[in-house]
Amino acid sequence: MNRRLLLVSNSTLHGGGYLDHCQQQIKDFFGEDVKRILFIPYALHDRDAYAKTAKQKFKSLGYEVDSIHEAASPVDAVRKAQGIFIGGGNTFRLLKTLYDQNLVLEIRKRVLEDGVPYMGSSAGTNVATISINTTNDMPIVYPPSLKSIGLVPFNINPHYLDPDGNSKHMGETREQRILQFHEEPDTPCVLGLREGSMLVVEGSKATLLGTTNARLFVRGKPATEHEPGADFSFLLNDSSP
Amino acid sequence: MNRRLLLVSNSTLHGGGYLDHCQQQIKDFFGEDVKRILFIPYALHDRDAYAKTAKQKFKSLGYEVDSIHEAASPVDAVRKAQGIFIGGGNTFRLLKTLYDQNLVLEIRKRVLEDGVPYMGSSAGTNVATISINTTNDMPIVYPPSLKSIGLVPFNINPHYLDPDGNSKHMGETREQRILQFHEEPDTPCVLGLREGSMLVVEGSKATLLGTTNARLFVRGKPATEHEPGADFSFLLNDSSP
Ligand SMILES: [Ca+2]
Ligand SMILES: [Ca+2]
Repeated sequence: MNRRLLLVSNSTLHGGGYLDHCQQQIKDFFGEDVKRILFIPYALHDRDAYAKTAKQKFKSLGYEVDSIHEAASPVDAVRKAQGIFIGGGNTFRLLKTLYDQNLVLEIRKRVLEDGVPYMGSSAGTNVATISINTTNDMPIVYPPSLKSIGLVPFNINPHYLDPDGNSKHMGETREQRILQFHEEPDTPCVLGLREGSMLVVEGSKATLLGTTNARLFVRGKPATEHEPGADFSFLLNDSSP
Repeated sequence: MNRRLLLVSNSTLHGGGYLDHCQQQIKDFFGEDVKRILFIPYALHDRDAYAKTAKQKFKSLGYEVDSIHEAASPVDAVRKAQGIFIGGGNTFRLLKTLYDQNLVLEIRKRVLEDGVPYMGSSAGTNVATISINTTNDMPIVYPPSLKSIGLVPFNINPHYLDPDGNSKHMGETREQRILQFHEEPDTPCVLGLREGSMLVVEGSKATLLGTTNARLFVRGKPATEHEPGADFSFLLNDSSP
C-alpha cells in the first residue's frame, strides 16, 4: 500500500502563524512533484475566508491551492487531485459534509489505491482515522455515522492536553475521556497528539514528528509516552496490538 | 404544564463531596412527598458503584434510591417512579442507552404529563434538554439521534467554562464552540451553566439558582450574563426568543 499521510495535531501553535510550526514537514511531504493541492474547508463556516488563509500559506511554500467549495463537482475535484489537505474546525460539521457530498469513499480510494498524498490538521486528522469517536469537538450537527475515511485503523486525539493540576474545573480530563472510550468493547488504540506534534505515514511506516511527545492509549493497558522520532508502524497493522 | 425540573451543571464542586453544593436545592425540590427516587446511572460504566454513591448521598437527605439498572423492566421502573434523577458521566453513552432501553419518550411522558419531578446533573442535564448538541463530552458511542428527552425547548451547556487567558492551548474555547453551533441554521438558545449553578423549572417558571452566574447565548446576538435568581421563564416559551 503506497499510502502517504501527514496528520497534524493543530493548525496553529501558540505564538506562531497558520501552519508555521509544520511548514518544513509540509514541504518534505508534498515535495516537488505535487504542484496543486485540493483544500477542503468544510470544518469552518466561512469557507471563502478559510480558503484564502490556506491559499496564502501554501503559496508561500510553493504550492497552488484549489478549494473544493469552489469546484463545480466536489467528487470530480477529488478524482483529479494531486494532493489533498483537510483543515481543522468542527469535526462533526466536517464529517457530515464529507458524507453529504459523497466524498468519504472517494477520498479513501484516492489515497489508499492511487497513493494521493493526504494532509490533515486537527479535525482533518480526526476524519483521516477510523472514526471521529475521539474528537474534542462539540456535536453541533449529526453526521450519518462516526466512522470516517479510515486511512489508518486506529484513533487519534488531536490537541492532546495534559491535566492541569491547578484547575478547579470538574469536567473530565482528556485522559479520562479517552479511558471512557476504552470502557466500550472492541475500541481501537488512541494516539494522543499534543499540539506541536504530527504523524507521518509512508506506506506501512508511521513516525512521530514535531516538538512534543505523544501519549498512546491501548485498551486495557497503561498509557505510554513516546518522543519525536518514535516508530508507530505497529499501529498500522492492527487496531488493537 | 405541571413540569418540575432541577437541572444541575455539575455533580461535584471543587473541594466538596458528591452533590454537596446542591443538597439544599435537592431537598427543596423533591420535598417531603417523594420518598423514593429512581436513579439512572447509564452515563458511567460502573453502574453498581455509581448507584452506591447516589444511594448514600440521597439516604443522607432522607430519600431512598432505586437504581434502574437493578430493575427487571426499566420501562416499568419509570412508569412507577415518584421522582427521577439522571446522573452525569458521558452524555453519548447515556443517551444511547436511554434509546436502547426505550426510555426517552417514557421519561418525557412521565415528567410532562404526570408531573414526576426530574433532576439531572451534568450529562443528566444535557439529556433533559431538546438535544445533546451542546454537550462537552467525547462521542465514544453513536446514539440513534442527538435529540434528547426535550423537557425544555432549548440547550444547556453544563460545566460552562470561561476562556483561560494564560492558556497556550489552541483548541476552541467553550464560547467559540457554542458560537459554531449557532452558525448552523435554526439552532435554539444555549444556557451556559457554570459549575455551582443550576436551573429550577416549576411549570412555566424557570429560575437560576446556585452561586455562579450563567451565560446565555441567543443565536445572532451577543452573549449575556445572568446572576443567581435570574428569571429564565422566557426560554420556556420559545427556543429562539
Ligand atoms: Ca476543533
Ligand atoms: Ca461528562
